[in-house]
Amino acid sequence: MNSRKAIYPGTFDPVTYGHIDLIKRGSRLFDELIVAVAENPRKNPLFSLADRVEMLQSSLNGFKNISIKSFTNLLVNFAEEENAGVIIKGLRAVSDFEYELSLSLANRRLAPDLETIFMMPSEEYSFVSSTIVREVGLHGGDIGSMAPPVVMKKLGKIAEERRRP
Amino acid sequence: MNSRKAIYPGTFDPVTYGHIDLIKRGSRLFDELIVAVAENPRKNPLFSLADRVEMLQSSLNGFKNISIKSFTNLLVNFAEEENAGVIIKGLRAVSDFEYELSLSLANRRLAPDLETIFMMPSEEYSFVSSTIVREVGLHGGDIGSMAPPVVMKKLGKIAEERRRP
Amino acid sequence: MNSRKAIYPGTFDPVTYGHIDLIKRGSRLFDELIVAVAENPRKNPLFSLADRVEMLQSSLNGFKNISIKSFTNLLVNFAEEENAGVIIKGLRAVSDFEYELSLSLANRRLAPDLETIFMMPSEEYSFVSSTIVREVGLHGGDIGSMAPPVVMKKLGKIAEERRRP
Amino acid sequence: MNSRKAIYPGTFDPVTYGHIDLIKRGSRLFDELIVAVAENPRKNPLFSLADRVEMLQSSLNGFKNISIKSFTNLLVNFAEEENAGVIIKGLRAVSDFEYELSLSLANRRLAPDLETIFMMPSEEYSFVSSTIVREVGLHGGDIGSMAPPVVMKKLGKIAEERRRP
Amino acid sequence: MNSRKAIYPGTFDPVTYGHIDLIKRGSRLFDELIVAVAENPRKNPLFSLADRVEMLQSSLNGFKNISIKSFTNLLVNFAEEENAGVIIKGLRAVSDFEYELSLSLANRRLAPDLETIFMMPSEEYSFVSSTIVREVGLHGGDIGSMAPPVVMKKLGKIAEERRRP
Amino acid sequence: MNSRKAIYPGTFDPVTYGHIDLIKRGSRLFDELIVAVAENPRKNPLFSLADRVEMLQSSLNGFKNISIKSFTNLLVNFAEEENAGVIIKGLRAVSDFEYELSLSLANRRLAPDLETIFMMPSEEYSFVSSTIVREVGLHGGDIGSMAPPVVMKKLGKIAEERRRP
Repeated sequence: MNSRKAIYPGTFDPVTYGHIDLIKRGSRLFDELIVAVAENPRKNPLFSLADRVEMLQSSLNGFKNISIKSFTNLLVNFAEEENAGVIIKGLRAVSDFEYELSLSLANRRLAPDLETIFMMPSEEYSFVSSTIVREVGLHGGDIGSMAPPVVMKKLGKIAEERRRP
Repeated sequence: MNSRKAIYPGTFDPVTYGHIDLIKRGSRLFDELIVAVAENPRKNPLFSLADRVEMLQSSLNGFKNISIKSFTNLLVNFAEEENAGVIIKGLRAVSDFEYELSLSLANRRLAPDLETIFMMPSEEYSFVSSTIVREVGLHGGDIGSMAPPVVMKKLGKIAEERRRP
Repeated sequence: MNSRKAIYPGTFDPVTYGHIDLIKRGSRLFDELIVAVAENPRKNPLFSLADRVEMLQSSLNGFKNISIKSFTNLLVNFAEEENAGVIIKGLRAVSDFEYELSLSLANRRLAPDLETIFMMPSEEYSFVSSTIVREVGLHGGDIGSMAPPVVMKKLGKIAEERRRP
Repeated sequence: MNSRKAIYPGTFDPVTYGHIDLIKRGSRLFDELIVAVAENPRKNPLFSLADRVEMLQSSLNGFKNISIKSFTNLLVNFAEEENAGVIIKGLRAVSDFEYELSLSLANRRLAPDLETIFMMPSEEYSFVSSTIVREVGLHGGDIGSMAPPVVMKKLGKIAEERRRP
Repeated sequence: MNSRKAIYPGTFDPVTYGHIDLIKRGSRLFDELIVAVAENPRKNPLFSLADRVEMLQSSLNGFKNISIKSFTNLLVNFAEEENAGVIIKGLRAVSDFEYELSLSLANRRLAPDLETIFMMPSEEYSFVSSTIVREVGLHGGDIGSMAPPVVMKKLGKIAEERRRP
Repeated sequence: MNSRKAIYPGTFDPVTYGHIDLIKRGSRLFDELIVAVAENPRKNPLFSLADRVEMLQSSLNGFKNISIKSFTNLLVNFAEEENAGVIIKGLRAVSDFEYELSLSLANRRLAPDLETIFMMPSEEYSFVSSTIVREVGLHGGDIGSMAPPVVMKKLGKIAEERRRP
């Protein structure tokens, strides 16, 4: 597999400035970076897969070596199809760290040549997560410093629909 | 905001002796303490909001500077409405700690003058959580050392209803 | 209670090689080991209780001092019924550790004579969990190094049924 | 003890912008805040007790309800002498958290009326510690965003002396 | 190796009520329990090896299946000499847990038949450690609820000698 | 700085198979990898800087894009001198993770263009650390599965010298 081509997988429900910070950092280390949106029906996402991809696209417009794709199979199989040799994961908290470590060891057993690397978001985004963005945004709080404008707009629409009788 | 007025927020599904221990400690540090019950439909609570408030009220009867209120908006907005300058959180375990830290940093960005402080319950309640009280109580176990009698009574009713055909 | 008789409780949804490693280690320390399958409807298991017991039985065939039982009441009550004096828990990650510690302190309050001990799986299974086995197996990934053949077979059937129109 | 009077204890070897951030936050919650410098010979500090106090004094000049004192006895005894009812601790990482929790439970047993509260520094100082300031400063790195100018000056002198034959 | 014979190793500098709680719990699970005092010169203990053994002996007087021994070689070799098949470790905090897990995996590689089990002290001793006992005791604080009287006496002597000119 | 050139820094006191596993993984992701041995007098290493470099050299003989260098200044300054754009760190445990995260945030502030990535050693080396290798090796235990033969040899010499009168 090509160790100059990396995948940054996630649910992106929705994309945050923390994700975007990581994506920019990753794109500087590799020739090509695929932002891979997992369908993840098990997590029952708030946004549809199409919406999650669209929010990423409008936020990452103009980055040359970044592409955005969705996948529904196992991450290791998707990586193989794309001939990508590296998985990038963001690390924030200890609980992240443990789960990601387990997952990565499982992936390593399934695909020994696929390497996982962990990167840190900027400290100003250390507390930003999709969960917090959804929670704050749906209650009408200001998420302007946590996620791109398109996210605020789409969350506003959902909140409005919920308030309707 | 008034730094002598504090809020202790939670789902209280149901209240435990760990919560009550924290509330007493908090009430000694501040002139006024609001126990703020979050509606939290996302967590799908076992008890209704009214029941959760009622169990707190009958358990905290007689404390002069403590009031019990429910809220459905963002915590930072509720604090602003109440003109409270401090949020109190209980700390038990490492995983608590991390989530609470993230949440508090998010709250700080939304309301920079609202300060969050963390307090420890007494060690004899260090393992007591609403989850464990529900689990043990619904199976008919003795929760007498973990939660006030009113909780046992209400859990017993729910267990009885579930057993009915 | 008999301190030579131990219980290894879990949901086993499904059994993994990590569980089996722990069971073998536990069976060497005690005269009798009961593998106790919790019904756990709250966790909404993928496999029925009967299937979970059956997968364990066919995997642990031939171990003399091991028996497999299911239980629906509180673990401490089940232990009392069986006159078992020891609970065995496996430890993998820090988050496991904290939750298990809380649970064990709660159990100790309910049954002071019931002792909980923690054991480590072999490092080659340190990342294997039922969640990862389900996730990988349902997507058709190779779980041959993580769980017994019977698990692969049953997961394959479920995956097939889901694909059917 | 006076629950409106708080102590913020530490070794302050040397003071950092993280400490100063905490001190300002604490001084807003209480009528009086004592920054208490522990002698701590066991930790073999780089700076003398006098130097550590002096660096705090020149950094905290002008805060009305803050005083700086050193102590050599047990923290709980010092608090009693000062009639202070609250200990403030800063929380950064999980390892901090655990040690501080243990220490606070020990202090609570020694002085049940002395309450410990934990506060978070601003996220921009989340990684700043005295250890990192010493390490970077002694190697001539720029600590201008981590500690007050007086610290840079004093660290520079020490580094110079060490280079002398 | 004999899986009915266990070793509880430590530096015991000095013994605490947390250790004694663990020892009693361990002695109920096994036919024979050796409390094994590591010389540990690398840790530069406060008490001599002889003093540490003596404090244990006077505290554990009267327990029939418990013996106290010191060792200077590798724990796995000591266990082999004693024909003991089980190592008992106490678990308090997450940081304990990680270090102990690493050590146990290393021991397992050196002696695959030697099993390590972890046990929890009573919650009232969850914060008690030798470090805290030394710190409090040497400053003249009351350690009566943390360690046996003999420890207070010996710590008092050391504190007195230190105060002498 | 060159994002195709990476540095793997450490004390390597001594090198272990865990380090070597990381180095091989890192060398596959980058065009050039510098194994950078920190002098670290503050840690009072067992082996001299020259010995630590030598053990790495004889263990990494034959890897084309790997070089071994020592450094005594700040890591960020060394990286700048070498025009390396990436720091590689190995992750094992939660406590590692936290300290490394803090250090990396400090480094990022000192050198914003220098990126830190974290990689996992193979699970069979997850418990191997220089500390455990020194401890076991000096007591004559078998470290053959934890570190290269040259380490065993050098540790044996040190153990022998210590035994001499």
